[in-house]
Amino acid sequence: MKSYNALETTFERLHHLKHLESITYWDQAAMMPSNSNEARSKAMAEYGVLLHQLMVDPKVGELINKAEGEDLNEVQQASLREMKRRYDLSTWVPEDLVKAKSLAGSKCEHAWRTQRTNNDWKGFLENFKEVLNLSRQEAKVLSEKSGLSPYDSLIGLYEPGMNTKNLDRIFGDVKAWLPGLIQEIVEKQKTRKVLKPEGSFSVEKQKDLGLKVMAKLGFDFTRGRVDISSHPFCGGVPEDVRMTTRYDENDFVKALMGIVHETGHARYEQNLPEQLRVLPVGRARSMGIHESQSLFFEMQLGRGSAFLKSIHQDIVASFGASQAFEIENLINIYRQVKPDFIRVDADEVTYPAHIILRYEIEKALIGGEIEARDIPDMWNEKMMSYLGVDTRDNFQQGPLQDIHWTDGSFGYFPSYTLGAMYAAQEFNAVKKECPQIESHIEKGDYSPAFNWLKKNIWSQASLHTTDDLMLKATGETLNPVYLKNHLIERYLN
Amino acid sequence: MKSYNALETTFERLHHLKHLESITYWDQAAMMPSNSNEARSKAMAEYGVLLHQLMVDPKVGELINKAEGEDLNEVQQASLREMKRRYDLSTWVPEDLVKAKSLAGSKCEHAWRTQRTNNDWKGFLENFKEVLNLSRQEAKVLSEKSGLSPYDSLIGLYEPGMNTKNLDRIFGDVKAWLPGLIQEIVEKQKTRKVLKPEGSFSVEKQKDLGLKVMAKLGFDFTRGRVDISSHPFCGGVPEDVRMTTRYDENDFVKALMGIVHETGHARYEQNLPEQLRVLPVGRARSMGIHESQSLFFEMQLGRGSAFLKSIHQDIVASFGASQAFEIENLINIYRQVKPDFIRVDADEVTYPAHIILRYEIEKALIGGEIEARDIPDMWNEKMMSYLGVDTRDNFQQGPLQDIHWTDGSFGYFPSYTLGAMYAAQEFNAVKKECPQIESHIEKGDYSPAFNWLKKNIWSQASLHTTDDLMLKATGETLNPVYLKNHLIERYLN
Repeated sequence: MKSYNALETTFERLHHLKHLESITYWDQAAMMPSNSNEARSKAMAEYGVLLHQLMVDPKVGELINKAEGEDLNEVQQASLREMKRRYDLSTWVPEDLVKAKSLAGSKCEHAWRTQRTNNDWKGFLENFKEVLNLSRQEAKVLSEKSGLSPYDSLIGLYEPGMNTKNLDRIFGDVKAWLPGLIQEIVEKQKTRKVLKPEGSFSVEKQKDLGLKVMAKLGFDFTRGRVDISSHPFCGGVPEDVRMTTRYDENDFVKALMGIVHETGHARYEQNLPEQLRVLPVGRARSMGIHESQSLFFEMQLGRGSAFLKSIHQDIVASFGASQAFEIENLINIYRQVKPDFIRVDADEVTYPAHIILRYEIEKALIGGEIEARDIPDMWNEKMMSYLGVDTRDNFQQGPLQDIHWTDGSFGYFPSYTLGAMYAAQEFNAVKKECPQIESHIEKGDYSPAFNWLKKNIWSQASLHTTDDLMLKATGETLNPVYLKNHLIERYLN
Repeated sequence: MKSYNALETTFERLHHLKHLESITYWDQAAMMPSNSNEARSKAMAEYGVLLHQLMVDPKVGELINKAEGEDLNEVQQASLREMKRRYDLSTWVPEDLVKAKSLAGSKCEHAWRTQRTNNDWKGFLENFKEVLNLSRQEAKVLSEKSGLSPYDSLIGLYEPGMNTKNLDRIFGDVKAWLPGLIQEIVEKQKTRKVLKPEGSFSVEKQKDLGLKVMAKLGFDFTRGRVDISSHPFCGGVPEDVRMTTRYDENDFVKALMGIVHETGHARYEQNLPEQLRVLPVGRARSMGIHESQSLFFEMQLGRGSAFLKSIHQDIVASFGASQAFEIENLINIYRQVKPDFIRVDADEVTYPAHIILRYEIEKALIGGEIEARDIPDMWNEKMMSYLGVDTRDNFQQGPLQDIHWTDGSFGYFPSYTLGAMYAAQEFNAVKKECPQIESHIEKGDYSPAFNWLKKNIWSQASLHTTDDLMLKATGETLNPVYLKNHLIERYLN
C-alpha cells in the first residue's frame, strides 16, 4: 500500500498546484485588463513548464510500477489507472516536441485571429502546415507507445476508449439518416411563423435572469460564480467553478441558453465526489461525458417545452410581456433548424453534420491521406453534401471558423456529438425511471433528472471507463439511436 | 558576468511564478465565493512551499557568491544586492520555524476574527503567546545572521536600513510635539460647524465617481482594475495592478479617499521601470516608501484644498448639489481631527500616536521586556497619555483591533508613519521645484507632482537604499520636520 499512498499525496499536491493555474486562466479570460496579456502569458508558460516538470518526475513512474503490484481495492485500482493514464500522456511525448508544438500552435492561433477576419486561407496555410506536421509527429509517438493508430491516440486524449472504428460506424449511421431528417424538418418549419423578440435587452436584466435560472438549475453560488468573457466556458476548479457567458443586448435568446449549457458543465464539476476530487479518478470522465452534461441541460432539458414553460414567467418578468414571449413562440424560437455555415451557431439537428465533416477531414489529415492544402475542397464538398451549404472561397465561414486546429487539437471535435448522444441516452434513462418527468419539469421541479445525474454520472467521476459508466447508468454502452429518436420526436412530432 | 546573468534568469522566473500567487491572492479577497476558501487555502499553502523551495535552492546562493566577484555595472550591483537580500531572508530562517510560525499565525488570526467581535482577550492570549514565542525565535535567528538586534531584524523585513536607534529619535521627537498639537487642533475645530452629507450614496454612483477620480490620477486601466473587498488593498503585479475598495452607502467620504490612497500604491507599481521590474531591484523600495506614495496621494494631495476643489464638480455631478457639498464644508469634512480608538479610522494628525504606541509595545515584546499579558495595560496607559482615550477592558477597540500581530508581523507598523513622513518630505520637494503647484492642482493638472514622483521615486524602484533614494530625491535623508510643518500648516493656519 505504501507506493499507492505516496501517489495519492503526489497527485493531491498537483491538484492544489493546478488550482492556481485554473483560476489564473479564468482571470485571463474574464478579468484581466487588455495590456496585461504579455506578462500573464509569460507567467502561464513558466508555470506550465513547472507543472509539467513536477508531473514527469521519474519517481512518479517508479511509484506507479510498484503500486501496480500492491493489493488495492476497486477504487484504488481505478485511481491508479487514471494516475497512470495522466502520467503516460505527460511522459510519452518528448519535451522538445511539446514545446515545438506549443510554439507553432501559439503562432498559428495568434495569426489566425486576423487571418480569419481577412478570409486569408493562404496566410493561414503557411503556419498551419507546421502545426499539422508536429501533430502528426505527436500522434506517431503516442501511437508507438499506446499501440493505437495515430489518430486514435489523439482521440484518446479527450475521449479515452473511443476510436475510429466505432466513430466510423456511429457517424456512418448518422450520415445515412441526418440529411434526410434535416430536409424534412426544414420543410415542416417553412410554414411556421416565428416572432423575433424586440430588444434591447440590457446586460443587467439578462444577468439577473441568468442568475435566477442558474439557481433553479441548482448551481451552488457559494462555490462558484458567473462572469463575462468573449468565449463562454466553464473553468475554475470543482471547489470553485468559474462559468462565463456573453451578452448581446439585441438578443437574449443565446445568452440564456448559453448559461443553461455552462450550468450543466458546472454542476458536473460541483458534484464530483468530494473525497476523490483531488485525485485523477475523482475528475470528470471525458470531454464527451462533460459535453453530455451541458447538452443534457441545454438540449434535452433546456430546449424542451416543459422547461421553457417552467422559466417562461421569469423571462416575462425580466423583459415584460409581448407576443414574441408567448410560450408557443418561445418554444419555436428555441427550435429553429437551419443548415448554415457556423458550427457554434448551429441548432442541435444540423450540429452533428458539422462534427462529422471535421472528423472525416482530421482523420484524413493525421492519417496522411490528404494535406493541409486539400482542406477547403474537402470542406466544401462535404458541406454541400451534408447541409447543402456552398463554402467555396468562403474560408472565414469555412475551415477558418474554429480555433481547434490552429493549435493542433486534433481528435477533440468528435466529443461534441458523442456528448449529444450520451445526453440523449441519459435523458432517456431518466424518462424510464421517472415517466412523469415532463410534468415535474414543467412545475420547475428538475430534481428527478438531477438526482439521476448525481447518482449515475456526477458522483461516478472517473471510477469507470466510459463504456462501463454508460452501461451502469443506462443499461447499455453508447447507443446513438437515442439522439436520432430525440430529434425525430422533438422536431417532427 | 555569467553568474550574474544566470541569477537574472532565475529571478525573472520567480517573478513570473509569483504572478500567479499575486493574482490568486487578489481573487481570494475580491472574487472567490465563500465556501471555496478551504480548497484555496490549501492550494495557496502548497504553492507557498513550492515557491520557497525554488527560492532557497543552494545553487542560487552559489551564484550570488560568484557574482559578487564579477565585474558589474552600477545597476547590476544594486540588482545583486537586492537578490542577496531576498535570498538571505528566505534562507536564514529554518523551514521548520517558517512552517510553525505560519501555522500558529493562521490559527491565531482565524480565532481572532471571532475573539475581536467578542472582546475575548483571554482567548486571544492563548494562541498569541505561541505566535510571540515563534516571532522571538525568528527575530533571534535573523539577528544572529544579520548582526542587527532582534527587533531591528524584523523592522528590516519591511524597511531595510531602518532601526530602533533612529525610530526612538524620530518618534521621541514626535511625542514631544504631537499631543500638544492635537489638543490645539481639537480646540480650534470645536467652533466649526461641519454638515454631514446625507445619503444614501449608491455603490454604482460611488464606483463611477471613483473611476473618474482614478482616471484623473493617472491610473492605467489597461494594466489594472478596481474591485470590492472587505479590506481594501493594492495587489496584483506591476503589469496588472489589482486595487480593491469597499463602499458604504451611507457615507461616500471614506471610499472616495480610500480610492485616492490605493491609487497612490497603484501608480507606484504601474510605473516601476519596465526593463527591471522582473528583478528584485525593479520592485518597490520598502513598505515605508510604498506607503509614502499612498499617503502622498491621500494626505498631501488628496485632502488638500486644491485637490478637493479640482474634484468638487465630479462629486456634485455624482450625488447632486447640496449645502454639505459646498467646497468649504467638503474641505472641513476631510480635515476632521478626533482622538479615537481605531487606527485605520484615524485622521492624519492622530495617526502617528497609534503607530508610536504599537512600536513601543512590539519593541518591548520582541526585546523580552514585557510579555503578551502585559499588552492591555501598556496599551491603555499609552492611549491615555498620547490621545486621552480610555481603553480599559475594551480589547476590541484596543489591542485586538489590528490583524498585524495575529500572524506575527512585528516590525511592520512603523512603516505607516515613516510613509507619512516620506510623503510630506516628497511633497515639500515638489513645492520647491514647482512653487505654483497648488494652482496647477486646483485646475486638475497634477502632472508636476506625478512627473516628480515618476522621476524621483517610481522609476528608481530599489536601485538605491532608502536613505540614498530620499537624498537624491529631496536633498536630504528622512527628515520628520516636514510632516510636523505640514500638519501645522494645514490644521492651524
